Amino acid sequence: MTEISPSMNQALGLAAQALFLSNPNPRVGCVITDVNGNMLGQGFTQRAGAPHAEVMALRDATARGCDVRGATAYVTLEPCAHQGRTGPCCDALIQAGIAHVVASIADPNPLVAGQGFARLRAAGVQVEVGPGGTQSRDLNIGFFSRMVRGIPWVRMKAAASLDGVTALANGTSQWITSPAARADGHAWRARACAVLTGIGTVLADDPRLDVREIATPRQPHLVIVDSLLQTPANARLFNVADRRVLIYTARPDAAGATSLRARGATVIELPNDQGKVDLPALLHDLAREGVNELHLEAGHKLNGSFLREGLVDELLLYLAPLMLGQGAQGLSNWGPLQTLADGIPMQFQTVQQVGPDLRVVSRIAGRADF
Amino acid sequence: MTEISPSMNQALGLAAQALFLSNPNPRVGCVITDVNGNMLGQGFTQRAGAPHAEVMALRDATARGCDVRGATAYVTLEPCAHQGRTGPCCDALIQAGIAHVVASIADPNPLVAGQGFARLRAAGVQVEVGPGGTQSRDLNIGFFSRMVRGIPWVRMKAAASLDGVTALANGTSQWITSPAARADGHAWRARACAVLTGIGTVLADDPRLDVREIATPRQPHLVIVDSLLQTPANARLFNVADRRVLIYTARPDAAGATSLRARGATVIELPNDQGKVDLPALLHDLAREGVNELHLEAGHKLNGSFLREGLVDELLLYLAPLMLGQGAQGLSNWGPLQTLADGIPMQFQTVQQVGPDLRVVSRIAGRADF
Repeated sequence: MTEISPSMNQALGLAAQALFLSNPNPRVGCVITDVNGNMLGQGFTQRAGAPHAEVMALRDATARGCDVRGATAYVTLEPCAHQGRTGPCCDALIQAGIAHVVASIADPNPLVAGQGFARLRAAGVQVEVGPGGTQSRDLNIGFFSRMVRGIPWVRMKAAASLDGVTALANGTSQWITSPAARADGHAWRARACAVLTGIGTVLADDPRLDVREIATPRQPHLVIVDSLLQTPANARLFNVADRRVLIYTARPDAAGATSLRARGATVIELPNDQGKVDLPALLHDLAREGVNELHLEAGHKLNGSFLREGLVDELLLYLAPLMLGQGAQGLSNWGPLQTLADGIPMQFQTVQQVGPDLRVVSRIAGRADF
Repeated sequence: MTEISPSMNQALGLAAQALFLSNPNPRVGCVITDVNGNMLGQGFTQRAGAPHAEVMALRDATARGCDVRGATAYVTLEPCAHQGRTGPCCDALIQAGIAHVVASIADPNPLVAGQGFARLRAAGVQVEVGPGGTQSRDLNIGFFSRMVRGIPWVRMKAAASLDGVTALANGTSQWITSPAARADGHAWRARACAVLTGIGTVLADDPRLDVREIATPRQPHLVIVDSLLQTPANARLFNVADRRVLIYTARPDAAGATSLRARGATVIELPNDQGKVDLPALLHDLAREGVNELHLEAGHKLNGSFLREGLVDELLLYLAPLMLGQGAQGLSNWGPLQTLADGIPMQFQTVQQVGPDLRVVSRIAGRADF
């Protein structure tokens, strides 16, 4: 494993500050140091359309009155080489006289990967790639997924009792977990580009599914899987400012589409052969909309559909210190299985107590290998 | 919280070495130091009938050629004041000339509590009580339970997938968790005085339910809840040397009792009004047999009976990084509940990764408050 210098660690910390902010752009941090390792400037990627990390760090150096000629830039992703809403970062680094660039990992965009480095090297800048690559990729697993696989990273969120119950047989499910766990869940919503739920949840709970429990500079989009287009035009989910609502349906002729569009929703017709919403096609569509991380917060039926179709990458599970017994609802209606070998193998990522509850983040084995 | 000195910490560590050994006696450690804190002798309680911690520490001091007159004895439980299979430890300390005794906690036996301290004080020994009391009680939660409540501490062990499945609908349940988790489970069996299971498990799996995966100086008793006395006389559970097998039944007239007794089993008739084994009475009976910690390793039906009757104190749950979906068996057939408030509230004790699995130890809230 490539050793990570203090400056690169600092850059990774800065990148994490873009967690709720930079979507759909990657979370990137940059630290510029002189030959003695003194920090001259630092920054992280801002909202889409605003400056990237490198430009923020160069501006910071200027604001500090620091001369960056001959300096080293530590950046957690390959500097961009293309003109988007902002100019190419590699050009900005070259023009500022940066002599060395240490980058964690190449940009996964197949159209870009390596071109930033090539342009830097062609201008005489020394380039080193590797330190912090694992961390940077992990922080941007959704961006890498969208760029490499053409689909978002799908994180299924669920809350259950210690004996695996997500709702009682009579449907009761609210407040299984604590306020602390719910606030933590909002932080995971906030880092996602979009929250996805099913029409069953909309009709049963009339939820807003926005980020309320923590401060965030932006709201993730809301995506609803609504095969029969039953979302009520007066649903509470429309009472959230500055948020896109995308409703996927299998009923192109549904009468309600007009009133839903009048509420600002984008209604997308995407049926599969069974008259349901085509979930793989939905994921590709969301990737085209710039969705990196998709936060799946649905009931056991839609959870089951995502698991059955092999579309889940990660499980975000809150376990309450509680037993609720039988006759109740589990995490998904996927199954039943005939052998244990048909189970979905996972790997624990982090296990942490959140208030009185336990938060378990685990990945479907192999799903991050792309 | 009383501050714990290094010597008392050492005594607590020694007490833990009696974990698989001293049942049904408590796990106790003792360290003797001179006025400068130099260790003169140490020991922990041996097998029942063999010396207690204090005598072991005095012997150790003698073996080291150390004079313990005027010394301090750190001991994790009140020295015993009664003549059992061994002599009273407080007399041994007095006779050796120990000047100070620092003890973690009083002996919970209502017939004994405080008498050891009183006898020491009467002999001019200075006595301090408190440091390490929480730790000592926790290590001996089963002993305290038996002494105070008259029933063992009941620890329910289960292994489940991350979505709460303990067995597939077709009954398949073996190897949900890893070899590391199974070995860890055997360590928890080893510390128990008895392992309890139901006739359903015996008939379905023909298990031995002994300690095999780790080294242990003794095998816990095996207790079978077998209302109709269906345990086969040729069950593999009889192929374990040096272990008592206690079979509780509701059928006093059952013909099989003779052949089971011929296999060395103790058959106990303990029916309740419903023609099942009276579980609360069973617990009192096991306490009279000297069972401190009872390791409940059963199927979802017997688990459900223990939960329904409010007899479970602690849950030892192994969660495999695996999803198994619906149509499967949960931890217990207790329930169904009408409201979340009817759930059993718990508190996490420890959460630890064991091999690829997660081990969650949690206690039913309030059950340790006795």
